[in-house]
Amino acid sequence: MAESGVAPAGGELDEEFAVPSHVDDVTEQIAAFAAGHGAGGRRVVLITSGGTKVPLESRTVRFLDNFSSGRRGASSAEYFLDAGYAVVFLHRHRSLYPYARMYSGINLLDTLQIKRDCDQVVVNQQVLPNIAKVLQRYQQVKEDGLLLSIEFSTLSEYLHLLKAAAQALSKLGSQAMFYLAAAVSDFYIPASEMPEHKIQSSNGPLQITMEMVPKILSPLVKDWAPRAFVISFKLETDASILLDRARNALDTYSHQAVVANVLDTRRGYVVVVTPETQAELILTDEDVRKEVEIEELIVSNLTAAHSQFMNKHQS
Amino acid sequence: MAESGVAPAGGELDEEFAVPSHVDDVTEQIAAFAAGHGAGGRRVVLITSGGTKVPLESRTVRFLDNFSSGRRGASSAEYFLDAGYAVVFLHRHRSLYPYARMYSGINLLDTLQIKRDCDQVVVNQQVLPNIAKVLQRYQQVKEDGLLLSIEFSTLSEYLHLLKAAAQALSKLGSQAMFYLAAAVSDFYIPASEMPEHKIQSSNGPLQITMEMVPKILSPLVKDWAPRAFVISFKLETDASILLDRARNALDTYSHQAVVANVLDTRRGYVVVVTPETQAELILTDEDVRKEVEIEELIVSNLTAAHSQFMNKHQS
Repeated sequence: MAESGVAPAGGELDEEFAVPSHVDDVTEQIAAFAAGHGAGGRRVVLITSGGTKVPLESRTVRFLDNFSSGRRGASSAEYFLDAGYAVVFLHRHRSLYPYARMYSGINLLDTLQIKRDCDQVVVNQQVLPNIAKVLQRYQQVKEDGLLLSIEFSTLSEYLHLLKAAAQALSKLGSQAMFYLAAAVSDFYIPASEMPEHKIQSSNGPLQITMEMVPKILSPLVKDWAPRAFVISFKLETDASILLDRARNALDTYSHQAVVANVLDTRRGYVVVVTPETQAELILTDEDVRKEVEIEELIVSNLTAAHSQFMNKHQS
Repeated sequence: MAESGVAPAGGELDEEFAVPSHVDDVTEQIAAFAAGHGAGGRRVVLITSGGTKVPLESRTVRFLDNFSSGRRGASSAEYFLDAGYAVVFLHRHRSLYPYARMYSGINLLDTLQIKRDCDQVVVNQQVLPNIAKVLQRYQQVKEDGLLLSIEFSTLSEYLHLLKAAAQALSKLGSQAMFYLAAAVSDFYIPASEMPEHKIQSSNGPLQITMEMVPKILSPLVKDWAPRAFVISFKLETDASILLDRARNALDTYSHQAVVANVLDTRRGYVVVVTPETQAELILTDEDVRKEVEIEELIVSNLTAAHSQFMNKHQS
């Protein structure tokens, strides 16, 4: 999620970005999920994950995209589940998914064998290491109803579904966390300025002018879920501007923390920045050998901070 | 693949588009594959499939993409294999893959069950219909070495790997077919004009100027594989300009056929345009009920045309 000093979005969302048809259904689903878990005293985290698609043509052939496999969001979901949270996983269609992410990029058909004697198709467990253990954990999470999956593809869908989710989760007050790990586009082409048909290449070089996407963090913190614990992410390629940009975001939006990271080192190093603190989380060589993931450290840091936040705000 | 009257690419490819490090390995692989099958008299088709990624920044966060699941290329590969061809499948990383495509979008973990009695993880065959049959066919194709898989992500990779493939396959003469179904970007940002770091959203609206991609079809037909049977694809959203654009491409590049299709109807209707003929291929209601795919018709049309072409050019 990008942040900088720009006019906040709110009412104008509907004018500039088409409302997805299923937004009411999703709102109801999330509200029911939140009510069920909230009543049991369970914390709920909304994780956003993956990149957004920004169409360049209204009958879309071309689009602008953000680099994001959804790895950070998907693995974080697992650690939040381990920590006892219920998870709303708002993710880009076909981006990585909790548990299944471990086997992404593997051709399903390369993992299977036909067993003629028992008329079964079985998994080759050499090709899918730990599959029985992972499957068991996944099935347990499903059975307990702890993971609610919501998909988006375009920027418009993302913005509207996030708004719907925020409003549905706001009833949980400080018990709700927002973990905004999705790689959201900073730019878009307003519907009114978009060509209907495929841009013709014979017309010569292509000039594209894109407007800035309204900063959704502002209404989220101020209006939609003002009592929640909100974490945004800042990804830069230039390390020298990273911390300034993170501090700037906290000043602008007054939320609780920014997870700051640099593209090249993002799997081994992040800084969790809050108004008062700055915690460097680093994977040691030993961690890497043991296949510890940085998301385990991030989630551990933030769940502790969330506990403190809840204690302060419950009175 | 896009075509229009623009200066052909050839030597300048290396200057404008970074050469992928594995291009020599790939060339060798394809040459060995072609030699093996060519000696046995088997025809070889190179299928390109999926969209290309065009970076907007050199340390890439943002990129331009083309809408394409790779469905047409992946299903066509199966029909070419059924028709006795060996297939080089040059496809976008993570786009649909022959046979596996039938189960795409399904979470692997939702298809599996743990069988405690036999200590196996087995497939729920209700969730993956026909899996045993599909798996058997896939394994046969693999065992017979009939499918060579090559991946690309960026436009640069696509262009260089296609060139390498074309040169490796040219030794087969008219026995080689090129089936250029990939959705290749018409525009790119030259390396010299690309910003190194992530474009900052605080700088205001984004202006992007993209240059036209050189038309690779021209050197492919003229220089790289001049005796091969070459099919390009034309996708438009505006049906009224489609056939003109297809004819224009044939005039410009002097290749053998264009498969012309419109975005909204592409799964049920295409026109195969050659210099002398124009064949409309249409799925009837009955076809749709029986789950016949348009690619079966396209491949049937083109394999017949390829036979004629070979007869004419073998003498």
